[in-house]
Amino acid sequence: MSKTDLHQTLLDICADMAGCNDKGAVANYIPELAKVSPDRFGISVCLADGQQFSAGDATARFSVQSVSKVFTLAIALGRYGDGLWRRVGREPSTHEFNSVQELELRKGIPPNPFVNAGALVTTDMILAGSTPAETLGEMLRFVRQAASDDDILIDPAVAASETITGHKNWALAHFLASFKNLEHPCERTLGVYFHHCAIEMTCEQLAHFGRFLAGFSHSPSLVSRDNVRSINALMMTCGHYNGSGEFAYRVGIPAKSGVGGGILAILPGKASIAVWSPGLNKQGNSLLGTRALEALSKSLEWSVFDSGR
Amino acid sequence: MSKTDLHQTLLDICADMAGCNDKGAVANYIPELAKVSPDRFGISVCLADGQQFSAGDATARFSVQSVSKVFTLAIALGRYGDGLWRRVGREPSTHEFNSVQELELRKGIPPNPFVNAGALVTTDMILAGSTPAETLGEMLRFVRQAASDDDILIDPAVAASETITGHKNWALAHFLASFKNLEHPCERTLGVYFHHCAIEMTCEQLAHFGRFLAGFSHSPSLVSRDNVRSINALMMTCGHYNGSGEFAYRVGIPAKSGVGGGILAILPGKASIAVWSPGLNKQGNSLLGTRALEALSKSLEWSVFDSGR
Amino acid sequence: MSKTDLHQTLLDICADMAGCNDKGAVANYIPELAKVSPDRFGISVCLADGQQFSAGDATARFSVQSVSKVFTLAIALGRYGDGLWRRVGREPSTHEFNSVQELELRKGIPPNPFVNAGALVTTDMILAGSTPAETLGEMLRFVRQAASDDDILIDPAVAASETITGHKNWALAHFLASFKNLEHPCERTLGVYFHHCAIEMTCEQLAHFGRFLAGFSHSPSLVSRDNVRSINALMMTCGHYNGSGEFAYRVGIPAKSGVGGGILAILPGKASIAVWSPGLNKQGNSLLGTRALEALSKSLEWSVFDSGR
Amino acid sequence: MSKTDLHQTLLDICADMAGCNDKGAVANYIPELAKVSPDRFGISVCLADGQQFSAGDATARFSVQSVSKVFTLAIALGRYGDGLWRRVGREPSTHEFNSVQELELRKGIPPNPFVNAGALVTTDMILAGSTPAETLGEMLRFVRQAASDDDILIDPAVAASETITGHKNWALAHFLASFKNLEHPCERTLGVYFHHCAIEMTCEQLAHFGRFLAGFSHSPSLVSRDNVRSINALMMTCGHYNGSGEFAYRVGIPAKSGVGGGILAILPGKASIAVWSPGLNKQGNSLLGTRALEALSKSLEWSVFDSGR
Repeated sequence: MSKTDLHQTLLDICADMAGCNDKGAVANYIPELAKVSPDRFGISVCLADGQQFSAGDATARFSVQSVSKVFTLAIALGRYGDGLWRRVGREPSTHEFNSVQELELRKGIPPNPFVNAGALVTTDMILAGSTPAETLGEMLRFVRQAASDDDILIDPAVAASETITGHKNWALAHFLASFKNLEHPCERTLGVYFHHCAIEMTCEQLAHFGRFLAGFSHSPSLVSRDNVRSINALMMTCGHYNGSGEFAYRVGIPAKSGVGGGILAILPGKASIAVWSPGLNKQGNSLLGTRALEALSKSLEWSVFDSGR
Repeated sequence: MSKTDLHQTLLDICADMAGCNDKGAVANYIPELAKVSPDRFGISVCLADGQQFSAGDATARFSVQSVSKVFTLAIALGRYGDGLWRRVGREPSTHEFNSVQELELRKGIPPNPFVNAGALVTTDMILAGSTPAETLGEMLRFVRQAASDDDILIDPAVAASETITGHKNWALAHFLASFKNLEHPCERTLGVYFHHCAIEMTCEQLAHFGRFLAGFSHSPSLVSRDNVRSINALMMTCGHYNGSGEFAYRVGIPAKSGVGGGILAILPGKASIAVWSPGLNKQGNSLLGTRALEALSKSLEWSVFDSGR
Repeated sequence: MSKTDLHQTLLDICADMAGCNDKGAVANYIPELAKVSPDRFGISVCLADGQQFSAGDATARFSVQSVSKVFTLAIALGRYGDGLWRRVGREPSTHEFNSVQELELRKGIPPNPFVNAGALVTTDMILAGSTPAETLGEMLRFVRQAASDDDILIDPAVAASETITGHKNWALAHFLASFKNLEHPCERTLGVYFHHCAIEMTCEQLAHFGRFLAGFSHSPSLVSRDNVRSINALMMTCGHYNGSGEFAYRVGIPAKSGVGGGILAILPGKASIAVWSPGLNKQGNSLLGTRALEALSKSLEWSVFDSGR
Repeated sequence: MSKTDLHQTLLDICADMAGCNDKGAVANYIPELAKVSPDRFGISVCLADGQQFSAGDATARFSVQSVSKVFTLAIALGRYGDGLWRRVGREPSTHEFNSVQELELRKGIPPNPFVNAGALVTTDMILAGSTPAETLGEMLRFVRQAASDDDILIDPAVAASETITGHKNWALAHFLASFKNLEHPCERTLGVYFHHCAIEMTCEQLAHFGRFLAGFSHSPSLVSRDNVRSINALMMTCGHYNGSGEFAYRVGIPAKSGVGGGILAILPGKASIAVWSPGLNKQGNSLLGTRALEALSKSLEWSVFDSGR
């Protein structure tokens, strides 16, 4: 496929998405996020040869929210390796992303690092030995380095908004603490968690960030090849909460979504893709973002399950 | 990699597996299967160029059991397309392979076609308009054609053994019937189900069978490219029951296991792999089979999540 | 209170019930039961002094269904004593009366003898050493003796109807068998179960039957005083499935309901009450029957939780 | 029975309990409570004629903990009547007393007012329009008036201890808040909750307190007769968490336990009983306290399910 074709495909997808009547519902449980228009849509793709193509609102900043669970996982995996799995599992969840009940059934061990409870645990692990400010600094450095872009910031208003209204996350943190699966006071771990969820990025920045997961030679070498495989595997089986099976079936690309409407999708060796549209489906994943990735995967045969790669 | 290397890798894996102390527990709830020695181990790999390499007990017949869920899914998907998903879901299960409780929570819609309840539904669907004998005949023809081998048979003793002792499957069938998600009498659907589970194959036959899922050009064209992608996706997210996340993480190859100890694993465009060892881990998947696939994936970087493919 | 007052109270309740618009829904999963009119209503009360008062359709026969769980419990408790509790629990259930999921969570031990799975176990226990015909004969003798009335029979059409359509009960039986908590073949235990559920009685007969549970001196002595207390306690905490708490709160009298619309209620030392109306509430208990008992309890201060007794 | 006999029965029970080897485990999740010796045992009984008999450590103060759920229920029921049931249910729970999962299944409506989540809701309701100090003042006045004793206080060390370590209660409160089933900030409702759990009473005071629930004419008239029946009914079906069925079966008296080891038991019209021993069984109810009440009920035929009353 010529590069021109890819750009045209992105423009076509962009136009198709604009024509959709059902754009999902913008997350309303974080007041700051509820202000964004569901009509926004952006997409950006980085290729192995270093080229990048974009369409739509690809330079608009959005709140990465749960996409930041990839950041914490990458850092925690680098620091703790398989020791990580003593405190969190690797299995998909059949419950909602902020479910408490499965945490009770599993005696305080979250099913995987991509549900809220699991990311609270990885956050708690990378907090060890540092202050919250230092930990957030380390995360920002990691993200900026991977994205080769220093203009990536945290929106304090979003973090503050969630600190006040995020009762389910407070419940999860206290619940983890009751099983002694948090080492720091709940408010400290939650503080870091709410702030890294509030990192703002554009599609272009996020696609750039994902290059190390696609294994591109021009990407900064931040994570071992083994850990890259591990992160991609977890994105495939757990990246879309209780809609992960559906996403794997329709799209076939490892990916992680956030309630801000962003999705980071990685086609190993071939492409790092970021898409954003704030309207969500009932599992809490971007409705148009998912559709766009399905269209992209179908039209280019970009699926890890396709022989034609 | 040269072909000689692949053969040597298989021989090495074979030797490593023989040296393992813990070989898992042979399924004891089907009396006929309990007779097999846990020391058996075989592996076979078909490549895109048509070559096949094997090691160990690769020509010994074993009971495919739940690997046959791939057969019923392939046939049902071909016949009903997306209509299939009205009666069965596409999400991983966090319960045991024969769990009843999640069927109750989901009001009679099994989570996916690779747990027992889901395969009962796909079996029921391909029974429509045919007698049990005709349906089993169709399945055998499909399997033989895909494997390019007519010497594939059903072991009636295994089928009879399970008919008598398979109380959980009887419970699942009646439960599905209570939700009107079986169209045929329980004993008829179960009869076909128990018989296709009792198909016997060797690793060499099963690896040969899998070529169409790997998308090899020399494979009989039995299923559309779209459906191949769909089946591979489901094998990745749901192929190992409540151990699917762990398998994706460790191995990174779409695969389906059976309690007979067999696993069919598909690396799209590159390899169709069959492995067999009857001892099971606690999720009901072949213990050595899983380890062997992990070793193969690691040493050859055969993971769909690796950029190096 | 004079006896005339009690009769008048029953007549008043009868009139009030006839005026209710919502009479609930007749059980439709047993075809034979679906034929009964929801307008039917009968009530009968036996007092400690031997007098009996009735109103409405108190001499119409209805299918006792789950009220027969009291019969099997009484016989099993007499034969096995506390040994019974090795195979069934004594806790209320928060699920539906034919729930499979809690059976899975509890590894094949039903929560109590008044949900279907629990009654299958008590039925299985009293089957030991006898043929189905002998066991049913024993049960009928027990019921007739307690009721001092030989004109109590099984309706074979209802039993046959449920044998064909009772998929959930078949599922429960096979599920119990898979946990080795049935000693007889499923079809044998279910055969006895479906038949004792199909016993037909009138309100007058059922109120007469309950005298031994009320501890009346003129009642045949069939069960020890300890066991009477035990049965009444279980009726209070478990007698109305997942509506038992509500019933205890509103009525305050130990009672057991059946999907045929009958309820047996026991005020120890004071009254044995039977009420029947075939329309059910969403927990599967007689809607008007429950209301009638609430009215009776309120107007006469007939609650075990009231100090005025 | 003569009064002398009752006293002798209490002394006998006291001696029997002292001889038990297994005295249960003192609650260790509240550090302050973990300090009490499991050898302590006290019992006290108030009769309808105004007499009171006691044995053992009946004048030792203990932390009432969940027995205070009766206080909040009584006040809330008096203030809101049936309006209370819009925010909390009336069914027994099959989970632990501090379970979060059933709260998720029930969408934020606790199963009953006697599990922690339910008592948080009743506490939140009686907080309406008052400061925490005023609400606690009202509760203390209610308890002192019912007990005809002003020497009843809150132990601030216990309240402080639980505020710091009670992560599950914090989780429950935030979870309720996420479903908008708390009207006040979590810390405020929890503050009142932790403090009323920390009320200290002796067995003699608690038995005296219970007189209004037994309907004694010499008791202060604090609650309507209807509400007394309601509270007793809830104590019977829900008073011992997921051990309520077992307690009803063995003891047959409406009762409410606390993790401090106290139990208040009410035999309507006949007796108000308080027992205390700090060692708990696995459901979190006093082990010796339960045994003592069973012995009392058996020897005096004090069960609401017995005809002999």
